[in-house]
Amino acid sequence: MALVWCNAGLEPGSREALDRAAGRHRVVFPGGPARSILEAGPTDDSVLDADIVFGQPDPAVLMRSARVRWVQITTAGFTRYDTGAFRDFLAARACAFTNSSSVFDEACAEHALALMLGFARQTAASAAAQALGEGWRSDRLRPRTSLLRGSRVVLLGFGAIGRRLARLLAPFGCAVVAVRRSPRPGPLPEIGWDRAADALTGADHVINLLPESDATRGICDRAFFQSLRPGAHFYNIGRGATVDSAALLAALVSGHLAGAGLDVTDPEPLPAGDPLWTAPNCWITPHIAGGYAGENLATVEHFAANLRRFFRGTPLRDRVW
Amino acid sequence: MALVWCNAGLEPGSREALDRAAGRHRVVFPGGPARSILEAGPTDDSVLDADIVFGQPDPAVLMRSARVRWVQITTAGFTRYDTGAFRDFLAARACAFTNSSSVFDEACAEHALALMLGFARQTAASAAAQALGEGWRSDRLRPRTSLLRGSRVVLLGFGAIGRRLARLLAPFGCAVVAVRRSPRPGPLPEIGWDRAADALTGADHVINLLPESDATRGICDRAFFQSLRPGAHFYNIGRGATVDSAALLAALVSGHLAGAGLDVTDPEPLPAGDPLWTAPNCWITPHIAGGYAGENLATVEHFAANLRRFFRGTPLRDRVW
Repeated sequence: MALVWCNAGLEPGSREALDRAAGRHRVVFPGGPARSILEAGPTDDSVLDADIVFGQPDPAVLMRSARVRWVQITTAGFTRYDTGAFRDFLAARACAFTNSSSVFDEACAEHALALMLGFARQTAASAAAQALGEGWRSDRLRPRTSLLRGSRVVLLGFGAIGRRLARLLAPFGCAVVAVRRSPRPGPLPEIGWDRAADALTGADHVINLLPESDATRGICDRAFFQSLRPGAHFYNIGRGATVDSAALLAALVSGHLAGAGLDVTDPEPLPAGDPLWTAPNCWITPHIAGGYAGENLATVEHFAANLRRFFRGTPLRDRVW
Repeated sequence: MALVWCNAGLEPGSREALDRAAGRHRVVFPGGPARSILEAGPTDDSVLDADIVFGQPDPAVLMRSARVRWVQITTAGFTRYDTGAFRDFLAARACAFTNSSSVFDEACAEHALALMLGFARQTAASAAAQALGEGWRSDRLRPRTSLLRGSRVVLLGFGAIGRRLARLLAPFGCAVVAVRRSPRPGPLPEIGWDRAADALTGADHVINLLPESDATRGICDRAFFQSLRPGAHFYNIGRGATVDSAALLAALVSGHLAGAGLDVTDPEPLPAGDPLWTAPNCWITPHIAGGYAGENLATVEHFAANLRRFFRGTPLRDRVW
């Protein structure tokens, strides 16, 4: 019998689903659950008895475990686990590490398309004008509308979200190119960062889907924004720290960028009074791209499916290391 | 040599394109152009000399013509031409009548999807919260997010916009059903209004794409909204007069509808102070669904292509009568 340790902030229905999925194995929930499934709950020494860890364990405590064989985190992002020391620990213990990225792919891809269409169709600007009681502003808004059809799209990073977004964009006949560290042959053109200049200069929509790491932190800097063509739209569905906020702000204020759609910012939450809130054509959604009704239960079901794979000895889904 | 009469409000570039397209034929622009290509300019007796009419001619004046052989209007909607007297006039003169619907299909379909995703991803609510300076409202907005994937969509009316929207929705795996006066076999399930009750009761998203006519005026009435399931979303990309505004308002205020996305209203422009402006979850875009950069030139090019067909004697595109 294995011991599953879980510090994810689960509501009763999702806890029951997890208990059912564990079957004859035991699930322990340490005291003081996190407010949300996406946030780190407390990690006490009870984690050291666990064979399997599900949630957001504190890596400093977890690294004292002599027992853990598999860790699944409830988020897609895994920045605080992405250290040499933690990877060495996993390797020494032959411990698997998985994330929950496939739980959030669809929502994030739909969210990116929602932001793109929000600019093209001026629906975000219409909602803002309506909220401010500006009335029927057809004269101002209709001349700013455009079509997404046939536009040139560059994806920064190309994992599951990017692949799904490319599928959603297929009927629009967009020219989609992916920029990634290690380009591979596939259905879309993929290019390395060293060869991305032409694609970036030609793009109408540039969509940042990057995780945060030493290689990506601040990668969208002043030179990056200057390399985009005037009138381009920029989106961030990845991580706030991959963008130099001052450089983004400058590109919006100067009008070089026609707009930015940001679901993530640096810092987060974006403080009241931050100039990005009122920068021209900057639409901010408060880190909701991955959300949807039932996301907690879907996260538990994703873990439960991996649990069955773990005991069968078949490959885990969303394996990172 | 034919005489082409045009009272569309064209800017110089589009006028030149029309002159070029006409070739050896003569184009006359009566004085006092309309403010916009979509609005009716004046119609004086000069229209009576025309073989071909392009724009928004006054049907009462035009019906005195003994010469006209083809009329193309610059809009998709043709309500004021849809009278027995005008159709009799066309038939008696063997005069063709075309509209510009294919100029606006793509934009309208993209707009409908933008409104649908604006609800699913809460991007419209985010833009409104941002405009009002409400700050980072993840706690309020994330629980309201949902996926468009797999949802049940009913299209009211199924012309070119509906066909294109169905294509854009294909990667979402939605169950799409079209309700129309005369259902035909095709790639999508089509049903008549008399058999629409089950589809409407089951729909997550109901999208009104209807033209205005005696058969459709006020068709979305109190009984219609009551027949939708609680929590459904309703959209109007068709014509404002097809919806009973008081019934729609009541369905929003009671919470029966989870939201409405309206690009058209009755009356239009929607007056300041109309309760729909502040009804819960009612997002209004000011009749911009068909808009895009270059729409005037595209309207002229559509006419020019039909002009070539007219002189070749091949079938006209977007022929109504």
